[in-house]
Amino acid sequence: MKILIIGATGTIGKAVSETLELAQHDLISAGRNDTDYYVDITSPNSIKAMYQNVGRVDAVISVAGATHFGSLAELTPEKNEISIDSKLKGQVNLVLLGLNHVNDFGSFTLTTGVIVDDPIIGGVSAAMASGAVRAFVQSSAQEMPRGIRINEVSPNVLKESIEKYGPFFPGFEPVAADRVAQAYRKSVEGGQTGRTYKVY
Amino acid sequence: MKILIIGATGTIGKAVSETLELAQHDLISAGRNDTDYYVDITSPNSIKAMYQNVGRVDAVISVAGATHFGSLAELTPEKNEISIDSKLKGQVNLVLLGLNHVNDFGSFTLTTGVIVDDPIIGGVSAAMASGAVRAFVQSSAQEMPRGIRINEVSPNVLKESIEKYGPFFPGFEPVAADRVAQAYRKSVEGGQTGRTYKVY
Ligand SMILES: NC(=O)c1ccc[n+]([C@@H]2O[C@H](COP(=O)([O-])OP(=O)(O)OC[C@H]3O[C@@H](n4cnc5c(N)ncnc54)[C@H](OP(=O)(O)O)[C@@H]3O)[C@@H](O)[C@H]2O)c1
Ligand SMILES: NC(=O)c1ccc[n+]([C@@H]2O[C@H](COP(=O)([O-])OP(=O)(O)OC[C@H]3O[C@@H](n4cnc5c(N)ncnc54)[C@H](OP(=O)(O)O)[C@@H]3O)[C@@H](O)[C@H]2O)c1
Repeated sequence: MKILIIGATGTIGKAVSETLELAQHDLISAGRNDTDYYVDITSPNSIKAMYQNVGRVDAVISVAGATHFGSLAELTPEKNEISIDSKLKGQVNLVLLGLNHVNDFGSFTLTTGVIVDDPIIGGVSAAMASGAVRAFVQSSAQEMPRGIRINEVSPNVLKESIEKYGPFFPGFEPVAADRVAQAYRKSVEGGQTGRTYKVY
Repeated sequence: MKILIIGATGTIGKAVSETLELAQHDLISAGRNDTDYYVDITSPNSIKAMYQNVGRVDAVISVAGATHFGSLAELTPEKNEISIDSKLKGQVNLVLLGLNHVNDFGSFTLTTGVIVDDPIIGGVSAAMASGAVRAFVQSSAQEMPRGIRINEVSPNVLKESIEKYGPFFPGFEPVAADRVAQAYRKSVEGGQTGRTYKVY
């Protein structure tokens, strides 16, 4: 399958790319640096331009999306916009603007995270964005045209990200990136829709 | 208790106000028309001004928040902004900017809706906003200062709103506004936090 991966250079993106290449898929990477196509998902115009340039694909995977981590006490509407602009609207707009660029029976796979189910201190803004993406996936699945499916992967904190996020996740059992990558493969090659693949 | 109700003039707002007045609370209404205090929740500056003018309260209830209803096929990033600006950011910012205006052991109560749990056709944008608010409530509860609590009420479609929303809710069993109002009373007078009160 021809698969467009937005965020291909990230921690999860690299693992997903490896897994899908081993499975003989034809990958197209997108992001702001070092990818086949440039896209800034916080800009609808940039998303439109990317799809125009890429053409039709069988699957779109989003493993991109910035969030703000920090205490509720210092969370401002402005800091909260980081998560809304990127992880929330960025991913939702990849779907809204990508519907006509995905082949019949193709799929979208977005990314949320464990903290929607298991809240952490400092994760309010990120959890909020993931909660929106989860509800969007569950609702939009039933309205997808031409047999197109949509799912989301909700990873636990990754072993590979413990240095970066560890202090926010005391007592969480980190998962390996290659295990998380399998959930994306299930979403792309399987037949399910409107699902959350929890890797925890 | 001194209770600030944003959206007091709405279908749910009127029922909540009646129920809380009967319970001898001291109510302050806010909204864009015919209320004690003006506020447009889509503007952080307007929210700040409202809190400055109102002073300290024991409870904040949000029964305001516009959403876009319509099919996925015609959902654009721009239409989706209606739900994001109002139901999502409006409610979240009422909390972020209101933290210092709520007395010790006071509470916030926000509003989501049944379609997060039971998706309808045409409800993608509204469900997305509610999903964000639900995750925000569940995460922020554990970081609230001074014993302040936060919950959300998730109403089914109201009997009183059947003319407006009925066609979107085939087979749903509408609930009466006064029953929905009890959930807000439970949130304000009870001791629970981080909860979803599902009225269905
Ligand atoms: N790592 C974890 O432990 C973990 C756990 C649960 C959930 N998640 C979620 O999984 C997603 C990916 O996480 P990650 O750890 O792999 O992130 P990461 O290593 O920081 O990688 C992010 C990727 O997205 C791209 N990107 C960031 N902002 C972008 C934008 N505005 N437009 C286009 N591309 C953008 C980055 O490339 P450029 O910066 O070059 O554009 C990079 O390829 C995030 O939503 C994260 O919250 C991660
Ligand atoms: N009715 C239902 O069946 C139902 C079911 C489930 C969930 N809900 C949710 O419950 C909430 C209230 O619903 P409702 O049916 O009671 O709505 P409604 O009758 O339309 O009332 C909305 C209230 O919010 C105020 N409002 C709207 N936009 C505002 C803004 N930007 N700033 C400040 N105030 C604003 C309105 O007053 P002004 O316009 O004068 O400002 C009004 O008082 C919504 O989030 C809705 O999605 C409703």
